[in-house]
Amino acid sequence: MRVRVLGSAAGGGFPQWNCGCVNCDGVRTGTVAASARSQESLAVSADGETWFLLNASPDIRSQIEAAPQLHPRRPRHSPLAGVVLTSGDVDHCLGLFCLREAQPLVVASTERVWRGLAETNALFRTLQRFPGHTRWLELDPEQRVSLPTADGAPSGLTVQAVALTGAPPLHLRAGLAPSELDNIGLLVEHAEAGAVLAYFPGCAQIDGRVRNALARADAVFFDGTFWSNWELKEQGLGERSAFDMGHVPVGGAEGSMETLQSLTQQRFLIHINNTNPVLREDSAERRFVEAHGWRVASDGLELVLGSTGARSA
Amino acid sequence: MRVRVLGSAAGGGFPQWNCGCVNCDGVRTGTVAASARSQESLAVSADGETWFLLNASPDIRSQIEAAPQLHPRRPRHSPLAGVVLTSGDVDHCLGLFCLREAQPLVVASTERVWRGLAETNALFRTLQRFPGHTRWLELDPEQRVSLPTADGAPSGLTVQAVALTGAPPLHLRAGLAPSELDNIGLLVEHAEAGAVLAYFPGCAQIDGRVRNALARADAVFFDGTFWSNWELKEQGLGERSAFDMGHVPVGGAEGSMETLQSLTQQRFLIHINNTNPVLREDSAERRFVEAHGWRVASDGLELVLGSTGARSA
Repeated sequence: MRVRVLGSAAGGGFPQWNCGCVNCDGVRTGTVAASARSQESLAVSADGETWFLLNASPDIRSQIEAAPQLHPRRPRHSPLAGVVLTSGDVDHCLGLFCLREAQPLVVASTERVWRGLAETNALFRTLQRFPGHTRWLELDPEQRVSLPTADGAPSGLTVQAVALTGAPPLHLRAGLAPSELDNIGLLVEHAEAGAVLAYFPGCAQIDGRVRNALARADAVFFDGTFWSNWELKEQGLGERSAFDMGHVPVGGAEGSMETLQSLTQQRFLIHINNTNPVLREDSAERRFVEAHGWRVASDGLELVLGSTGARSA
Repeated sequence: MRVRVLGSAAGGGFPQWNCGCVNCDGVRTGTVAASARSQESLAVSADGETWFLLNASPDIRSQIEAAPQLHPRRPRHSPLAGVVLTSGDVDHCLGLFCLREAQPLVVASTERVWRGLAETNALFRTLQRFPGHTRWLELDPEQRVSLPTADGAPSGLTVQAVALTGAPPLHLRAGLAPSELDNIGLLVEHAEAGAVLAYFPGCAQIDGRVRNALARADAVFFDGTFWSNWELKEQGLGERSAFDMGHVPVGGAEGSMETLQSLTQQRFLIHINNTNPVLREDSAERRFVEAHGWRVASDGLELVLGSTGARSA
């Protein structure tokens, strides 16, 4: 299985348009040791020809142009066959509307996420210009779903949802009770190659289901949004805690580094918020993460997983 | 008045994600003499401190990062005070949803465009997180409207809508009759400096109102989407004509170069589709445009208009 990190930052990206914090200001002026990152999204493929996005970030256009494997091979063509969504958050869905130019696409998501997107937004009709333009594929935690190519054949990849503690996206929260299908993790499998990818960009609670899912994977991408639970408050940029916003922090006794110490496969933090000190390559927090065997995902990182052996390209 | 071209391409940008036409393939491989362009948007300011966008393109995040004058001056800050919309098309509005991080903004548009955006999309609630988060300013062709800074003071700029022949955006077309308030041109004025900018990125018919408006401006940005009326069909990329899609072509007896020959101020084509031969710097069509005294707008172009004299930076 081929994997490319299209974007590795949390919503808003790094730097964020209206943020002049130490990290954002520093990456703009080149005074901190950090790389700019676009908003979180992965591309995955069984054969290197047909690709699926895991989340469609608002930065999708520049992410596609930066990735040669996603460029058209003919006058009207795209190697993209579909998008798998982990939530209905703006930073996971907005890029879909950039894929409106008459390309048939599959959107795989839970029913909650599909309804919140397709049934409450007139804008979504831009993806429904002809029969079969955008087809929904339901993700249900009980089932492993085959991802089809544009002509309906199996792509070689399957995807399975892992239900997570979550909440509806902010714009749908009024009057809607949280469900464990608002926000999911993904296990993407290329059975023929014996490769499994775990994709958990937003996770508020590391329970038994999460542990079991991560343990199955050859590579793990896990929620690295915040270093500490009160990171935003400490920097004067917000009032809510990491847990309250749906994210296990990286550091601390309850953090992912301590809680996921048993993992041994290659593992990456992703969905990194602009305030997170792990973005700085010379920070103590970055050293801590690396000492625990994790890496901080960066835009353009590529992996090959499976029978030829896992390697980082 | 300060003006920066944030993006100069039509919807989809140049190159477009699912297009491998001569131009798109050529700009990716460096085999045509052309520059990549992001989707059409301008930034304007009276004082260089408070800025307004004319349209919010899907490429807004990278456009802001490429423009130093739009960067924050403090930990939570943006020089952007608002967005003026010429239509409800996806490529003019989608960027709004990227400006959701708690920054109060004014959105100036016709009532049709505002209703189509704010009242038919649950996604829009992401811009209505607190009272005053996003405030609507109605544009009516009869009135010159003052654009306010974030604290409500006059910014020094006014904007006036020019009604155009148009149609609702594709995703709102079902059951909605066209109105001349679906699609407008803009006259942006900095009265103190004696500067007027005409912004007409989509125009299907050059009538007396359009001529009068353009004649008043110190600089004109005009619809350069297509070179010829059947450009898409000739390239096997679509069935609709330029006029039918709401755009006067650039070339031909009915085209903008012939029809607007009386203009003498500085003038630019903008909203250039990826199929348009004027994108190629060595094309006969580019020479024709330049021989008529026009330039093809490019990303990052900056102008200063007004009492210090119009100059291109």
